[in-house]
Amino acid sequence: MESQITSRIAALRHFMRDHRLAAFIVPSTDPHSGEYVPEHWEARKWISGFTGSAGTVVITTEQAGLWTDSRYFLQAAEQLTDTGITLFKERLPDTPSITEWLGSVLQPGDKVGIDGWVNSWQSACELRNELEQKSLRLTFAPDPFKDLWTDRPALPTDAVFIHELKFAGETCLSKISKILDTTHQNGCSGILISALDEIAWTLNLRGTDVHCNPVFVSYLLLTEESYTLYILEEKLSDEIKDYLKENGIEVRPYQQIEEDLKNMESSVQLPPNINAAIYQAACARAEVKLLPSPALFLKSVKNETEIEGFHRAMERDGIAMVKFLRWLKEAVRTGNETEISVDKKLYELRAEQALFHGISFDTIAGYKAHAAIVHYEATPETDIALKPEGMLLLDSGAQYSDGTTDITRTIVLGTVTEEEKTDYTLVLKGFLQLSNAQFPQGTCGTQLDALARLPMWKSGINYLHGTGHGVGCFLNVHEGPHQFRMNHMPALLVPGMTVTVEPGIYKSDRHGVRTENTMLIIPAQETEFGSYYKLEPLTLCPIDKEAILVELLTDEELDWFNQYHETVYQRLSPKLNEEERQWLAEATSPLKR
Amino acid sequence: MESQITSRIAALRHFMRDHRLAAFIVPSTDPHSGEYVPEHWEARKWISGFTGSAGTVVITTEQAGLWTDSRYFLQAAEQLTDTGITLFKERLPDTPSITEWLGSVLQPGDKVGIDGWVNSWQSACELRNELEQKSLRLTFAPDPFKDLWTDRPALPTDAVFIHELKFAGETCLSKISKILDTTHQNGCSGILISALDEIAWTLNLRGTDVHCNPVFVSYLLLTEESYTLYILEEKLSDEIKDYLKENGIEVRPYQQIEEDLKNMESSVQLPPNINAAIYQAACARAEVKLLPSPALFLKSVKNETEIEGFHRAMERDGIAMVKFLRWLKEAVRTGNETEISVDKKLYELRAEQALFHGISFDTIAGYKAHAAIVHYEATPETDIALKPEGMLLLDSGAQYSDGTTDITRTIVLGTVTEEEKTDYTLVLKGFLQLSNAQFPQGTCGTQLDALARLPMWKSGINYLHGTGHGVGCFLNVHEGPHQFRMNHMPALLVPGMTVTVEPGIYKSDRHGVRTENTMLIIPAQETEFGSYYKLEPLTLCPIDKEAILVELLTDEELDWFNQYHETVYQRLSPKLNEEERQWLAEATSPLKR
Repeated sequence: MESQITSRIAALRHFMRDHRLAAFIVPSTDPHSGEYVPEHWEARKWISGFTGSAGTVVITTEQAGLWTDSRYFLQAAEQLTDTGITLFKERLPDTPSITEWLGSVLQPGDKVGIDGWVNSWQSACELRNELEQKSLRLTFAPDPFKDLWTDRPALPTDAVFIHELKFAGETCLSKISKILDTTHQNGCSGILISALDEIAWTLNLRGTDVHCNPVFVSYLLLTEESYTLYILEEKLSDEIKDYLKENGIEVRPYQQIEEDLKNMESSVQLPPNINAAIYQAACARAEVKLLPSPALFLKSVKNETEIEGFHRAMERDGIAMVKFLRWLKEAVRTGNETEISVDKKLYELRAEQALFHGISFDTIAGYKAHAAIVHYEATPETDIALKPEGMLLLDSGAQYSDGTTDITRTIVLGTVTEEEKTDYTLVLKGFLQLSNAQFPQGTCGTQLDALARLPMWKSGINYLHGTGHGVGCFLNVHEGPHQFRMNHMPALLVPGMTVTVEPGIYKSDRHGVRTENTMLIIPAQETEFGSYYKLEPLTLCPIDKEAILVELLTDEELDWFNQYHETVYQRLSPKLNEEERQWLAEATSPLKR
Repeated sequence: MESQITSRIAALRHFMRDHRLAAFIVPSTDPHSGEYVPEHWEARKWISGFTGSAGTVVITTEQAGLWTDSRYFLQAAEQLTDTGITLFKERLPDTPSITEWLGSVLQPGDKVGIDGWVNSWQSACELRNELEQKSLRLTFAPDPFKDLWTDRPALPTDAVFIHELKFAGETCLSKISKILDTTHQNGCSGILISALDEIAWTLNLRGTDVHCNPVFVSYLLLTEESYTLYILEEKLSDEIKDYLKENGIEVRPYQQIEEDLKNMESSVQLPPNINAAIYQAACARAEVKLLPSPALFLKSVKNETEIEGFHRAMERDGIAMVKFLRWLKEAVRTGNETEISVDKKLYELRAEQALFHGISFDTIAGYKAHAAIVHYEATPETDIALKPEGMLLLDSGAQYSDGTTDITRTIVLGTVTEEEKTDYTLVLKGFLQLSNAQFPQGTCGTQLDALARLPMWKSGINYLHGTGHGVGCFLNVHEGPHQFRMNHMPALLVPGMTVTVEPGIYKSDRHGVRTENTMLIIPAQETEFGSYYKLEPLTLCPIDKEAILVELLTDEELDWFNQYHETVYQRLSPKLNEEERQWLAEATSPLKR
């Protein structure tokens, strides 16, 4: 009997035949290039059965392949069983790239189709160049899943709601005015904003269309003459409609954007990652410039209201974390708790806090060797019981109306090895070195990244993820343009930006350690050499002292650590009950040599 | 009476009229884009009287201007007196760029001339684009100074000499074979090498055509069929001619390169900074690719023979430095020594050493406030007497057949202030932090640069020069492709590369401190996380202990410092006399808390 997946692939091959395509590529992206994809666009999952967040399916008339990275090798192999789809393991020396593979299985002159809506213009251009070197042709085809995917989830119709000025701190008209100023400086008369968090930030609106990200599916077109939000009308209550009207923002149907861009003249600025369909529509009559959206930078620099909000949100999140940690250290003795159950407990404690709007990303709760899997997410199949030994890596965060949190603590549940203590301390040293940095105006994240790595580099250890990222204000937990990374990120660090500091050590089949705070970049000093900035911790939560080898810390590192714990106690203790306060006093008592 | 300069400018205006040029631009570069320019190409100096190393003269039919940077504001103002040339101070907010100025003084459609031989193709393209925005046209004109500059120094005819295999460690045919391998991988059948140090390295030849750089003026064209050196024949002795013939290297006249490139077919690789005349000649019939020369990277990774040579050269240089330092500390008490006189003494001590071939760059000997001028070079007018107080910054180096040296020491001559001590110690901390780094394969200099700056950043201090550069082996003291810099330099750090570590603090009108060693990148460790590298000091010379605030050093920093001094003593003391040995024992005795 034909499986569901093979019949779906067969249907796509019908579509390909109708459009004279020798292959069709199904990526895991959506039209807005977001980190999480609304179900409506999860066509790659539907066509393959593979549920991982990253992966690309390629279907030819005879064959099918899925390209994914090492995080998903096991899962993909399992989910692809009996689908006829071959797994191609990315970044292994013998794995062909998609175009190399297409070059080997297709005939010269064959056409390879993609849907321009879910591929960026830039990646489509690269793909076209690579295919041309194999004498293949790239073709933009209509969305095949519109007809094939009969029970396809509709575009989300969830209601949009107002992000109040008392949290946003700046009106949408003020933000629009700044965006248009930069647009005009760039020599464009209009700008299309396509990133959902930038639209939410600009309009002071939020939604629930995307997992963990409080955004709504839409486009925002701003010109000298008019501001237009392209959105499904059923998402807008009368209150929101009034709000938009008051601010001079016209509403047009979401799907209307293509036609309107085709008719647009003059010049329009699009983001470099704009999808190919939008790009081509805009190019019909207008002059198009691909430039980073001004909203990306403006959004990253928090205003006073947002900063105050962050501080309040971090206090509430810290209280939930303290209650959780106190509970956890006891609870593991019962043997009844697991990675999933403790995450559930943490969720409940956060949900009790005011202004809570859910989690800001899927919790990583990795016990012992699971913590060495950088993107581990516990499932009922992998879930294991916690015991009073080893360490639990817990990376979690929440959305509150006044701020978004992102915190990692590696929690000592009982006996730990010397190697675990050393690795825990090396991570802490890197965390402290970067947290305690001071740096001049004009510094970018790449210049500081090594501060968090040097202590472990000296022991021949490294981690392959970034050291830090921006955090939205009741918005996406990952936001640009700045980062701490080994590879070059030119965006400068500016006071008002949030940024995480999160070094880690991961030893396969043994253990994993990561310590993370969300920080705020603040002015530190004006000298004859210019302006200097430093990092102020936003996150308020003790860092487990039990695995620290204090002799590995410098005096400066130890001072910062004890000072931070003092602050945590001062800020959180007034809002705790007596038992909790006592626990926190002990957890934050000075670490001594 | 018309001055010499104004009559030269008048002559150039004749040339401009003959060529229908409204303006002519005279840069300070030569056809090979070198750091030092042979006299033959010092046309900018000849036309303006300005002798600084950096500056561009622009002549129009009515006006004339010189653009230079802050190092030369005073000198230029003085040297331009009565020349009719206006000084334009670069990087000041009100200073127009050259093209802005030309846009304001010329008429639309006017032609601006340059000599393609002394302008890179890329900078000419940028200039053309900028001029077009002002409705001006760029024109490549012949070299006007060929006829105008009647007593122009000829192309240097100095003899070329062999860099023996016992110093070079690899035959020229082996090097050529590696260069051509990469050239072919780049899809080119031939490559033109234009950088003089790359030609010298490839052929294991040296010359004396350029100040401080032991290179000779030439081009080297390598193809599958033939290797051709374009050079003035009078530079070649019979021995060199035989050597070239043995290695299958044909010799053609230097000026013949243009014609030969015009007749070349197939495909040729040129460096990105190639001059416009060569670029255009190569484009006549061949396919041209602008790609970094493989010799740039190959040269930067020293072989075992070169590394051994560096160690020997550094020992001899260290002995000269020790003799000098011991002498200096006494000599300043006489009050008869000056910045220039001590440089002369240092030169004499180095010249006594075997295999000495002169200095590797112009010494910077800056006493007290002079040390705060980053590019200070003492002249008879600025020279001051050294007294037993304050500090002398001494940045110097030499060329030896077996290696090139580059060392900075800031020498305490007597009483110093607390601020001087603090700054000296902050520089030392940065020097020690970077010197003691360990880092994974794949790291570039930009990632490590901040290690040398962080200690002073924490005090609101920074320096605006790079932290380190590669050093040639009996070649240019500055060589790429790697650097330690704040701005992004993607070249990776690889074992065998030399690199300086030279942080500094410069306080205007007060003092300047810099401490510099030349280091070798060596393998450190292989772990489950990959390969790790570290820096080994090549330079052997004590670092003045008198201004160190030891309480500001961490244990790790103090250990590295004492270990380094121990090595300096072990390596140098056997070659010193008893008094010198005693002085060195004291200078390198362990620093204690």
